Amino acid sequence: MSGRKTVSETLHEHVTLSFTADEVLHEATGHHKLELVRNRLFGKVLLLDGAVQVTSADEFMYHEMMAHVPLMAHENPADVLIVGGGDCGLAEEVLKHARVKALTQVEIDASVLDFSRRHFAEFNAPVFDDPRFHVEIADGAEFASATQRRFDVVLVDSTDPSGPGAALFTPAFYANIKRILKPGGIAVTQNGVPFLQKHEFVRGLSALSSVFAVTRAYLVCVPTYFGGHMMLGWASETDDALNVPEEELARRAAGIDTRYYTPAHHRASFVLPRYIEDLLAEAQARP
Amino acid sequence: MSGRKTVSETLHEHVTLSFTADEVLHEATGHHKLELVRNRLFGKVLLLDGAVQVTSADEFMYHEMMAHVPLMAHENPADVLIVGGGDCGLAEEVLKHARVKALTQVEIDASVLDFSRRHFAEFNAPVFDDPRFHVEIADGAEFASATQRRFDVVLVDSTDPSGPGAALFTPAFYANIKRILKPGGIAVTQNGVPFLQKHEFVRGLSALSSVFAVTRAYLVCVPTYFGGHMMLGWASETDDALNVPEEELARRAAGIDTRYYTPAHHRASFVLPRYIEDLLAEAQARP
Repeated sequence: MSGRKTVSETLHEHVTLSFTADEVLHEATGHHKLELVRNRLFGKVLLLDGAVQVTSADEFMYHEMMAHVPLMAHENPADVLIVGGGDCGLAEEVLKHARVKALTQVEIDASVLDFSRRHFAEFNAPVFDDPRFHVEIADGAEFASATQRRFDVVLVDSTDPSGPGAALFTPAFYANIKRILKPGGIAVTQNGVPFLQKHEFVRGLSALSSVFAVTRAYLVCVPTYFGGHMMLGWASETDDALNVPEEELARRAAGIDTRYYTPAHHRASFVLPRYIEDLLAEAQARP
Repeated sequence: MSGRKTVSETLHEHVTLSFTADEVLHEATGHHKLELVRNRLFGKVLLLDGAVQVTSADEFMYHEMMAHVPLMAHENPADVLIVGGGDCGLAEEVLKHARVKALTQVEIDASVLDFSRRHFAEFNAPVFDDPRFHVEIADGAEFASATQRRFDVVLVDSTDPSGPGAALFTPAFYANIKRILKPGGIAVTQNGVPFLQKHEFVRGLSALSSVFAVTRAYLVCVPTYFGGHMMLGWASETDDALNVPEEELARRAAGIDTRYYTPAHHRASFVLPRYIEDLLAEAQARP
């Protein structure tokens, strides 16, 4: 690779994931360092402060599992809220559901959406043309504490727990998420890769379970989120939506194109390897 | 990382995984390039020709799933064969089963076992003291074509399909594996990460399904096998062993310490994300 530009993930100490850049599409080094390059294996690769945020090639895995698991599980997910989700790949998956009548996305920085619209149109173009899609430019934690609106499903598509999204992993924030959920509501959160982010995972799930009656975590395995299984956290007040039979999930999934999600894999993704099961139990046992 | 020694995986073009080396434990550049370093996150990291073979920290994931899934599924896995498996982490897991009466490991190069015994004692020490463990120094493909012995479970713990292990991904080899299996026997194979090794995965599973009546593939997600889910191939003549209830798996697993395997995750690991399900169907549909 000598002589060619590369960009590297520096999120984890002692191990580095590097992408060769056939083209540098964007570079900015203000308050945050933003790098967008074109890579031959992963397409467009976006890094924020040295952490991979999204790539064209594998964004579908994380976005499908974060959107479709709660939306298929919910009886009637008419009103959906996304906190974060700047690249709008999650919004694309949410809007595939005809049962969704309105999607609100709260984004702290308007320029993030302009950036995503310009650079990730290959997956987010349908979002900006969809009349169900509404943007609120606001701090996610402040929005959750102030809004009078209520939602069926809330998706917290944050950056890493150690990064600028730290406020989105606290009991105070989760209490507000609970407040803005309608009866039967479900919240899903991004909780990193527990093999390398054990403490962040336990802290996040512990905070979630201090607020909600029912907490779970489910699996997704994404190439460019290095470190083994990435976890999505699940929170609700009853476990009804966890027990929807596969046949009913399949009925709700009819006509929705996916490349990762299946109704069978939906149910299987809650069955954890032991080392993650143990960390989840540790989180749930904390006072 | 400037100024510090690093070793890098060069298996996939355009993306590189690098490990800082606190200590270089071994380096050899003969017919094959061998690098063993100590890394603060993953412990000892072994690379062969620029492909990660094993690390102290995450070897348990792959080895547990390759060993315990067929061994728990089999009614009476008395005679087990490992082809390859040089680091002996797989043998360690196999020998945890009291039902295993004899384990034969076929290794092409005696020095590989000496090397593993010296450097990976933290997990393979029990193997070399176990009277059930027998080594045959031979080419795996030749052994399978010549031996008069028969086995209940055969585990093909090969290097990557593109590397020196290519002969272990052919219909001719699989026909010999079928020949040396006892009735009710099960073979399991290493089939790479299909997101980045799509053709190798389809070719390997296609070869397997041209020989065996029943083929499946199951999931494991290992940090240092970069590229999303790694697949293990399953081959048998009936699907009896695929339908063992979780309660029976749990009975057989009693007393066996694991950090990744659970009887519930055993069954869930056969439920694939759609992009892998589609590749498996493509492999099985080939003439």
